[in-house]
Amino acid sequence: MATNEPSGPVSDASDSRRGSLALRWVGIDTYRENVAYIHRDCAIYRAEGFQALSKIAVTCGGVRLLATLNVVDDAAIVSPGQLGLSEQAFSELAAIEGADLHIAHAERPHSMDAVRRKIVGERLSEQDYKNIISDIAAHRFAKTEIAAFVVSTAQNELDREEVFYLTQAMVSSGQRINWRETLVADKHCIGGIPGNRTSMLLVPILAAHGMLVPKTSSRAITSPAGTADTMEVLCDVDLPLGRLQEIVREQRGCLAWGGQAGLSPADDILISVERPLGIDSRGQMVASILSKKVAAGSTHLLIDIPVGPTAKVRHMDAAQSLRKLLEYVGQRLNLQMEVIITDGRQPIGRGIGPALEARDVMMVLQNDPDAPQDLRQKALNLAGRILEFDPDVRGGAGFGIARDILDSGRALTKMNAIIDAQGRRPPVAFGRRTFDVVSHQTGVVVGIDNFQLARIARYAGAPMDKGAGVDLYRKLGDRVESGDMLYRVYAEYAADEQFARVLTADNHGYTIGDLADLPRAFVPS
Amino acid sequence: MATNEPSGPVSDASDSRRGSLALRWVGIDTYRENVAYIHRDCAIYRAEGFQALSKIAVTCGGVRLLATLNVVDDAAIVSPGQLGLSEQAFSELAAIEGADLHIAHAERPHSMDAVRRKIVGERLSEQDYKNIISDIAAHRFAKTEIAAFVVSTAQNELDREEVFYLTQAMVSSGQRINWRETLVADKHCIGGIPGNRTSMLLVPILAAHGMLVPKTSSRAITSPAGTADTMEVLCDVDLPLGRLQEIVREQRGCLAWGGQAGLSPADDILISVERPLGIDSRGQMVASILSKKVAAGSTHLLIDIPVGPTAKVRHMDAAQSLRKLLEYVGQRLNLQMEVIITDGRQPIGRGIGPALEARDVMMVLQNDPDAPQDLRQKALNLAGRILEFDPDVRGGAGFGIARDILDSGRALTKMNAIIDAQGRRPPVAFGRRTFDVVSHQTGVVVGIDNFQLARIARYAGAPMDKGAGVDLYRKLGDRVESGDMLYRVYAEYAADEQFARVLTADNHGYTIGDLADLPRAFVPS
Repeated sequence: MATNEPSGPVSDASDSRRGSLALRWVGIDTYRENVAYIHRDCAIYRAEGFQALSKIAVTCGGVRLLATLNVVDDAAIVSPGQLGLSEQAFSELAAIEGADLHIAHAERPHSMDAVRRKIVGERLSEQDYKNIISDIAAHRFAKTEIAAFVVSTAQNELDREEVFYLTQAMVSSGQRINWRETLVADKHCIGGIPGNRTSMLLVPILAAHGMLVPKTSSRAITSPAGTADTMEVLCDVDLPLGRLQEIVREQRGCLAWGGQAGLSPADDILISVERPLGIDSRGQMVASILSKKVAAGSTHLLIDIPVGPTAKVRHMDAAQSLRKLLEYVGQRLNLQMEVIITDGRQPIGRGIGPALEARDVMMVLQNDPDAPQDLRQKALNLAGRILEFDPDVRGGAGFGIARDILDSGRALTKMNAIIDAQGRRPPVAFGRRTFDVVSHQTGVVVGIDNFQLARIARYAGAPMDKGAGVDLYRKLGDRVESGDMLYRVYAEYAADEQFARVLTADNHGYTIGDLADLPRAFVPS
Repeated sequence: MATNEPSGPVSDASDSRRGSLALRWVGIDTYRENVAYIHRDCAIYRAEGFQALSKIAVTCGGVRLLATLNVVDDAAIVSPGQLGLSEQAFSELAAIEGADLHIAHAERPHSMDAVRRKIVGERLSEQDYKNIISDIAAHRFAKTEIAAFVVSTAQNELDREEVFYLTQAMVSSGQRINWRETLVADKHCIGGIPGNRTSMLLVPILAAHGMLVPKTSSRAITSPAGTADTMEVLCDVDLPLGRLQEIVREQRGCLAWGGQAGLSPADDILISVERPLGIDSRGQMVASILSKKVAAGSTHLLIDIPVGPTAKVRHMDAAQSLRKLLEYVGQRLNLQMEVIITDGRQPIGRGIGPALEARDVMMVLQNDPDAPQDLRQKALNLAGRILEFDPDVRGGAGFGIARDILDSGRALTKMNAIIDAQGRRPPVAFGRRTFDVVSHQTGVVVGIDNFQLARIARYAGAPMDKGAGVDLYRKLGDRVESGDMLYRVYAEYAADEQFARVLTADNHGYTIGDLADLPRAFVPS
């Protein structure tokens, strides 16, 4: 077993030739890729003919992991008798520095043969997808191999049966929560719309009705705020699975970060490759969404597809075909599903950024007359549809029930109870540095670029600085005079303010025109 | 400009927010991928919203390069005011530690749009290939993006015009040598056959005839010896371009390592991704071979395609279609080309590994009666075909001329002159640790697995230990009794010997059977 002594270089090369190295922590965050660092003079490295960037298997005290090899020429990072591991890999090994470990060539993942068959145009079997996904979840694929899989499945588009196989394999790659109830409700939005924080309204409304809504969300990756980032303005969201289950039992709902639960881990790995590549095939998207929900134990699911010129889904026909695929795969997975297509022409609510979006949510819950009505209305629509999953709710009655729960203050009470249960946090101030962006034209707001506004909020510091972001003063259809304010930018630091200023000067994201130019909503809700 | 003072942490965060960091060398070899290391507490990192593994642009004293970002939590590697660069990136910047540098988000390479068009099945234009390859050569693509390009071009197979565009773009990505002669001869073998060191015989034969043969070769990547590794047993091969040109002027030929000349650098980058993926499409292979040759200034080229059950090309029809594609693209590039298909059923010569292969070559040049006849015969065949590129050589007369040059000792004299010019090295002993592998059956050798024999030689230490490798005592068609020796393995270290022993015990690579089982040569030469 591991010793407690500080690790030092092993001077006798013949020793390390026999296969044992001492573990060392290397403080480099390589983000979802295990990296191992070996000294060029390490005898094992020379003997085994390892190559930089090849995959090796590291075994330490019964734990085995795969890592990509980097060769080091600086003994201050690792010495010849040591093997360094990047942060994530080190913690995965759960051993202490100096622990004895062994390394070996990692076998090539057999399932890459299936990927190569996909590349030449074959349809893959249920077993092929199981093998590929379990190898990816076990870190047996290099990032380039994952890219090969992602491209091959985007290029020869998967048929709906293959999407089902892929989804099922992704569910099996990790934990699966069983809530032991017959109706576990959840909601997912295809995304791309800033400020669209309906989950933080749905959960208290539905939980107040008595429905089980154990909502786990992601943090922002490329957006200025995820639901987890926004909820974190109000309370803790990083809860151990046991605590989360307690809260759900007591409150019927929660709003937590889902990253700890180990749900569909292969999905996280695939996303870390797909996103930078800008490849987002329908099949992968459906598998990603549905695998997370099934693993989280959901039985009933509402999916919101916003459509608009700067939303993720830009045309009605694309939305319809995505809906059919979601419905088919959902049914194969025994999910009760509703898919609705909504207006995605502009941000929802006023705030963009964690603290500003949390303010909007709380104003709606508090029935503040100045609360953003579009956020309230959308949340009630969605809540109504989910309530109708309840066999005791008559078709069409959901909206009214949701409105009653909200208007009566029961949703606010429930939200406060959830916030207290998760661990209330002190209020967060908006960014101290602000500047206003004004219109240089007179006319009607006929376009708000979701993507550009999100980018401005990010440059201003969101989501890292919770108080940073953008507060919208005008929405589609509003009249503006030249000189009227369009929105205010909040930043915490001078540099961020400067970055955001430069970006807004280049393109402020608003189009001012004639009322006749206003694009019609794809679905007037 | 850079200062000479040792770099230290910049404690005033507001300073580094303004965009300047101090360069630091990080002794990690990340192999054809530039990696930049930034401390998590670096204010610029926080402010700009960089993400781990995103691409950044680093500017220092007028030089700009792109690198993948790794986030560091250990100030011993980089402190918050520094930016660390991996070894190759550091040397590319050609600055000293502590030099001022700036970083910015790298724009996504525009040519990834073309890759995404290829993924959805489009044929790409000449300009698309130019853009993609010049972005790859400038390190603007992440490895996953390169993988996406490689897979997309393998999946929707390139037409021959596209292969030409790709090849041309690869030539333009780097240096191109002009020898200022009308006949610059070269030879390439598709590979996969251990011991196939014909280049080391062709060069002295052709140069002795007076033909210009400036041969540059690669080192082994996955094989137990490349021509450069083998020549290095006899003399230096790592020569500056200027010196190489001098030698070629004096001797009419050379046998050098081609890695320094900057020929078709995009090819090296593509190979570093293709090879580990095991994706080797015809189009990429042809572009890789021909771009290197055109960049090296060749005008006349012989290509050898060995065919056999364990060669790289396994079927005659695949060899024929590869030949047509090579001929078409070669003609578009104004290369005079001969493509021949040869017997690739077993290793050529006896030795596998640098010193053992060099011994075979020298025995042939010395007209030693024990020299391996298959190596001699193949070299004479190829030399004859290349000699016939000479307008003064009658069709069919090449073989006789080559044999005369070899038999008369003129080839040996020329080889010694080239060795002396490049810098003769002291003799290399074979590995001190040996063991023999014997047959447990009686019969005829009907199969020798090229791949397994190469693997055994690698496990024994080749090419890193020049004396390591395998020496074959039996070839196809030879009779063996049970207990007869098949080959001897040479290793330098006990651990390597052990690795090789385990591998040979598992599969020694020979098949013993009936004379009738002997596969016929695809092309009886």
